[in-house]
Order: sequence, then structure tokens, then C-alpha cells
Amino acid sequence: MSKAIPEPVTRLIEAFSSLPGIGPKTASRLTYYLLRAPDKLTLTLADALQNLKSQTMLCSVCFNITVENPCPICSDARRDHRLIAAVEEPLDVLALERTGTYDGLYHVLHGAISPVNGIGPDDLKIRELVQRVVEGDVVEVIVATNPGMEGDATAMYVQRQLEGKGAKVTRLARGLPVGGDLEYVDAVTLMRALQGRSEM
Amino acid sequence: MSKAIPEPVTRLIEAFSSLPGIGPKTASRLTYYLLRAPDKLTLTLADALQNLKSQTMLCSVCFNITVENPCPICSDARRDHRLIAAVEEPLDVLALERTGTYDGLYHVLHGAISPVNGIGPDDLKIRELVQRVVEGDVVEVIVATNPGMEGDATAMYVQRQLEGKGAKVTRLARGLPVGGDLEYVDAVTLMRALQGRSEM
Repeated sequence: MSKAIPEPVTRLIEAFSSLPGIGPKTASRLTYYLLRAPDKLTLTLADALQNLKSQTMLCSVCFNITVENPCPICSDARRDHRLIAAVEEPLDVLALERTGTYDGLYHVLHGAISPVNGIGPDDLKIRELVQRVVEGDVVEVIVATNPGMEGDATAMYVQRQLEGKGAKVTRLARGLPVGGDLEYVDAVTLMRALQGRSEM
Repeated sequence: MSKAIPEPVTRLIEAFSSLPGIGPKTASRLTYYLLRAPDKLTLTLADALQNLKSQTMLCSVCFNITVENPCPICSDARRDHRLIAAVEEPLDVLALERTGTYDGLYHVLHGAISPVNGIGPDDLKIRELVQRVVEGDVVEVIVATNPGMEGDATAMYVQRQLEGKGAKVTRLARGLPVGGDLEYVDAVTLMRALQGRSEM
């Protein structure tokens, strides 16, 4: 960049640019915004970043991100501990929590099997899930990986690992998204919706 | 937010959300990205934020953001010190530098006159610009505020303040943007392009 930009400014622009979905233009807009904004805003952001890793860890039971171990969900006696939803990422836990209808526990796999990206089953928390089922009183594992190639491959693998371990293994239903329009739904989704049709 | 999100995570999501153009969804995507990314990335970003304000200041001559005072542009003897481009923001300096054809100095006004937002002439570095013209050997001030209501009002005000101070006051040309299509150009721009037509 030109010498019109001082080095501390360049460094922040570069740091912002390294985040996903933030290009050099957005990065410099954010940086120049912070230069004009009150110091407190910049320091709050810097503080929050520094505490993000130092104050959090993975729950030793479900591998969700947490401050206490085990996490509030795993240690909640009112939840159904015989039910485990296996998800790819911590954000998927939030998505299921937002439905307000799931009261079981979770298991965060931390990714999906993806040969292209060199991610195999051993890179995920699958062994730990199997161990929870073997050691615990688990009745059902809901495999809630993303619909798609990698999520499906992961689901298949998890299902095979859990065979004969005493828990029922289920998957989330496939079908039409609520509010979607039949005309614009892709063929695969429509096919799944047909296959999964239920009596009225 | 639900108790599924630990407090340090919530705090960073909120800090990111306070930036312009970053909504809660993007903020949580960025946060969860950082949780998975190497620690170094998060710390680099935190560091860059902390240094942004502590290591930079405004140039006492042109009010651009700088590490040394006066800034590298103001202290560059090879540039034409009799020419000043008055711009609204530091990012506008970069835009003009990118053209590679301007070798004068700058004056960052730090905003535009905007009665709606309660920004008057005294909130901008206009008095300091007039002083530079009065005290220095300035031949021309190019008012390079943004085309639009507020930029135009600011340009008019600056022009009036500089009347009789010995420097020529000019504005950037208005007209068709290069690569633009006549069909899609707005009426005001086209009108300006007509008014400013030149012989071939």
C-alpha cells in the first residue's frame, strides 16, 4: 500500500482482511471507522478478542465451547440426558436451541468428513461420541449434520460406528423448507420431500 | 442470547456487531471462525486494534492520519507544496494517491457540513485550511469533497472562506464515470456532463 497509509493502519486492515467474508475494501472501511470512533469501541473489541480464547474451552463431555466444564447444557439436570444431537459446529447447537423444542444434550463433532480438505473421521470427535453412547445411558443419537455431501458422509460414518452400541440412530427430516416455493425448490430437495411424504 | 453461548463469545459477537455493516449473523460467524482459527490470528487482530489509536495521530499540517508528525506527504520535498487538495476523509487521500497523477499536498476536513447530523463548519478543519492558505505559499486549493448535497455545501462554504486569500479555488470535474453506460447514468450526472462538455 502507499505511504499515505501509516503502518498501524495497514496492520489492522490486513488483520481484518484475514477474516472470512471481509475483503480489503471492507477492512479499510472498518479500520477508518474505528479511527474516528471513540477509543472505547476499539479497546472493547481488542479486549473481547483477547478474552475469547483465554476464557473459553471445549466442554469435556459434548465439546461445545464453554466457560465452565462441563458446559451449562451438559450439567442441566432438567434436560434429557438419554438424547444426544450430534452436530458439526457450535453454531449448529444455537440453531437447534433456537427451535425451543429440543431438550436433549449435544455432541459437537467439530467438522465433517471431507477428503478434499484432508479431514478424516479421526479429526472429528466421533470416537468420543461412541464412547459417550457405550458408557452412558443413551437411548437415541440424532445425527444433525448439514444436508449435503460432507454432512451425509459424516452421518453415514457415525451411524456405522454406533451400530450395535445400544442407541437408536436417527437423522433430521429432509423436505421442503417452510415458506419455500415448490417452483424454486431444487430437484434433490423435492425428491427427498416426495420420498418422505406422510399421510394427512 | 441463550445460555448455550458463553459470555466471552457473546461479548465478541456484540463488539463485532457494533461495527458498521456487520450484523449479528456476520458477527457470530466471525467469532466462531476465530474460535477455530489458530490463536495467533486472534492475537494479531487484538494487537493491531490496540496499536491503532496509541501509535497514530493526526498530522498537524494536513490532519491526515500518521505515525510521524508532519506526515510523510507533508514532509516530502518532491511534492508540490503550492497545491492543496481538500478532502472529507483520510480514505479520500488514498483514492487520489491511487490515481498516481496528483503530486500536491492534502487537507483532511474530517467530514462534511451536515445540518441533519448537527455537523457545522466549526466541526471541520476549515479554519486550519484557511490558515494554511493565508500563511503559506499556496497557489491552488482543489476542493475534492464528495459529489452530493453535503459535499457540495462544504465545497461552497470552503470556497467562500478562501475568497480573496490569494489562492485559486477549483473543484473536481463532474461528468460520466469511465466505463459507465449513458442509459444507466442518473439525470443529474448527465446534466453535469452536458454542462461541462468540451470540444474534441
